[in-house]
Amino acid sequence: MTRFTRRYRFAAAHRLHSEKLTAAENAELFGKCNNPYGHGHDYLLEVSVCGDVDPSTGRVISPAQLDEYVKARIVDQFDHRNMNTEVPALAGRIPTTEVAAETIEDLLISDWPKDWSARLDKIRIYETKNNIFETTHEAR
Amino acid sequence: MTRFTRRYRFAAAHRLHSEKLTAAENAELFGKCNNPYGHGHDYLLEVSVCGDVDPSTGRVISPAQLDEYVKARIVDQFDHRNMNTEVPALAGRIPTTEVAAETIEDLLISDWPKDWSARLDKIRIYETKNNIFETTHEAR
Amino acid sequence: MTRFTRRYRFAAAHRLHSEKLTAAENAELFGKCNNPYGHGHDYLLEVSVCGDVDPSTGRVISPAQLDEYVKARIVDQFDHRNMNTEVPALAGRIPTTEVAAETIEDLLISDWPKDWSARLDKIRIYETKNNIFETTHEAR
Amino acid sequence: MTRFTRRYRFAAAHRLHSEKLTAAENAELFGKCNNPYGHGHDYLLEVSVCGDVDPSTGRVISPAQLDEYVKARIVDQFDHRNMNTEVPALAGRIPTTEVAAETIEDLLISDWPKDWSARLDKIRIYETKNNIFETTHEAR
Amino acid sequence: MTRFTRRYRFAAAHRLHSEKLTAAENAELFGKCNNPYGHGHDYLLEVSVCGDVDPSTGRVISPAQLDEYVKARIVDQFDHRNMNTEVPALAGRIPTTEVAAETIEDLLISDWPKDWSARLDKIRIYETKNNIFETTHEAR
Amino acid sequence: MTRFTRRYRFAAAHRLHSEKLTAAENAELFGKCNNPYGHGHDYLLEVSVCGDVDPSTGRVISPAQLDEYVKARIVDQFDHRNMNTEVPALAGRIPTTEVAAETIEDLLISDWPKDWSARLDKIRIYETKNNIFETTHEAR
Repeated sequence: MTRFTRRYRFAAAHRLHSEKLTAAENAELFGKCNNPYGHGHDYLLEVSVCGDVDPSTGRVISPAQLDEYVKARIVDQFDHRNMNTEVPALAGRIPTTEVAAETIEDLLISDWPKDWSARLDKIRIYETKNNIFETTHEAR
Repeated sequence: MTRFTRRYRFAAAHRLHSEKLTAAENAELFGKCNNPYGHGHDYLLEVSVCGDVDPSTGRVISPAQLDEYVKARIVDQFDHRNMNTEVPALAGRIPTTEVAAETIEDLLISDWPKDWSARLDKIRIYETKNNIFETTHEAR
Repeated sequence: MTRFTRRYRFAAAHRLHSEKLTAAENAELFGKCNNPYGHGHDYLLEVSVCGDVDPSTGRVISPAQLDEYVKARIVDQFDHRNMNTEVPALAGRIPTTEVAAETIEDLLISDWPKDWSARLDKIRIYETKNNIFETTHEAR
Repeated sequence: MTRFTRRYRFAAAHRLHSEKLTAAENAELFGKCNNPYGHGHDYLLEVSVCGDVDPSTGRVISPAQLDEYVKARIVDQFDHRNMNTEVPALAGRIPTTEVAAETIEDLLISDWPKDWSARLDKIRIYETKNNIFETTHEAR
Repeated sequence: MTRFTRRYRFAAAHRLHSEKLTAAENAELFGKCNNPYGHGHDYLLEVSVCGDVDPSTGRVISPAQLDEYVKARIVDQFDHRNMNTEVPALAGRIPTTEVAAETIEDLLISDWPKDWSARLDKIRIYETKNNIFETTHEAR
Repeated sequence: MTRFTRRYRFAAAHRLHSEKLTAAENAELFGKCNNPYGHGHDYLLEVSVCGDVDPSTGRVISPAQLDEYVKARIVDQFDHRNMNTEVPALAGRIPTTEVAAETIEDLLISDWPKDWSARLDKIRIYETKNNIFETTHEAR
């Protein structure tokens, strides 16, 4: 089996804030990230698929088809968006990168084309170069 | 003369929008960056100073003093802020990275300690890894 | 157990083309990569070995011995080569990076020195910074 | 004045070989790069423009217009091409990165839109992460 | 389950030398790294934790608490230190990065706060950009 | 004119300490870098040369000849060395990166081959990814 990982990028704004906590608790918990007017990051998204190499093409998956799928379902929804207010899949949730990673994985799995022999293996998001979040299909 | 460059980082949100243009003109000019709810970036700021190496210390400037100065005047004002609404020095301006670079340079020059032998040489900001903005003291 | 990963680099040219497909099918499948005159990449190869730390040396493997082995069997065969015509181990195969990864793993395993306590764990190749291919000894 | 730099990428193959030299001289001069079947790189191109910030837009140049211009004149000509045989602007020249940089600069200057207030400042190409080539409009 | 990885950095000096070997054996085994006066690296440490996302915070662990813990137990002990003479946890051991990785993992596990729901998953150290060492809690 | 920059790397240890200052002054001035047992970095050295492109070779300078020159005069003297005690050119000086940059430039200029048409343009050293030092031939 071979794992193929492809990188995508999106820039987005967010504010970390829980409706269930007081202002003081939010400030304590989220620090600068609780700033009411939001801030932003350039998110680097890695989508990993796993499968056998097709001898007739030498490939695990068509990168062009994967791009089209990830672009339509993820990048177009998140890029240059405010994750608190503009991404339906995150509605009512705190838009941490953990939550974004879970959500993106769910979005990718839910419509994964049945005729693709490669399966989704994992999602990794670099929120900044020092904060990396990963979630795997198997582990959940 | 030796040039010493030190890197700082701040995450911020912005929206590119001109009050003098129509909605259609803004959309045409700024594209996704005109999205009303904002988006964000991790800005990498390079501050370059120029001076002679002091033989008694082997240094052009004290990095600790430079850090304290840049942190107080720049990073604390911009980090985890919305540049449209929360950065006084940008009030009334379109918060492109060109404008942020000019503004940061002005903020650094205006109070540059008179007893520092090194002078500010230039400012460079990486908005993303593909968009780099630079402004020099001499050139203006 | 500790995993030690060492990075190597090689520049190579390739053209993606299947003899079993028509010109139109090749163009559809491989896009720009089917360009008849070839193009190239700087491949970054990660070789990971796994083993116990030897208390008398503090090491899992001798980096110098690993370098010598990887250089002789891989880098010297691939670096500054055209993978369609000049790499015997790829003869008759489509030189995608998936195929190169499998081939490199096979080449490394087939002569792995019997007196090395560390075993080959996996191979990862960065074709470009956005396309990453990985294959593991166990998974196959 | 503000300098704005934007990064573009293209993958290409080349072979370094001078028709005016003997086989032995070519091998001596170009080493592995003289390999007859070619090899390749992922070139990173930086295009820097210089100009005043337009107060009505906050920008030096429209990134979208610059992209369109650089894509049409440069990236479409070089990406996934063999620089020895497929790039008309390099015909008859040895496709080193020095020559590519000069050629790209000439291509950009020759049709630079007259109504752009920003001018081309310089071109920089990273052939690999360790080999960087730069050429400036003024210096020539 | 989600894995969260956070990066830390420390600069340190070391000399690779085994008291059990002769001078010639040490030179043969460690090469330049046996140089008696030491040399140094900027180590990049990745600490990965694994756990469920807490729905009330959207997080696996508090980054601020993790930072405080890693800083006190690791960074403050290793940063700007000579690993042969100044790091008690390495006393009597050869300060290779394999040994440093095992030691750092042991230091982190031994006092891991019992009230944290996330557990330590693995440690990775980049000694240089080409030498990467990883050790996992499970594997040992 | 074209500028060609080539990157080299060396790992070294140093301690920042001035014999002319008291222990307290040294601690105040150099902070952690005054630690008596030393620490280290992976230095990235950029050597930039400037010249015309030779039409018969397409090059500004022979990279192989430049490598040989920089390796013999610089890398072999600094790599895996303690800059306080093992680098003759730094004897009696505080081995800051400013001083190392000046020293390396002097070493390169002093024996620059007279038959090279390209001249040394500047030296840049990345001490860490956040601290960059540059010195130019002209500016001195």
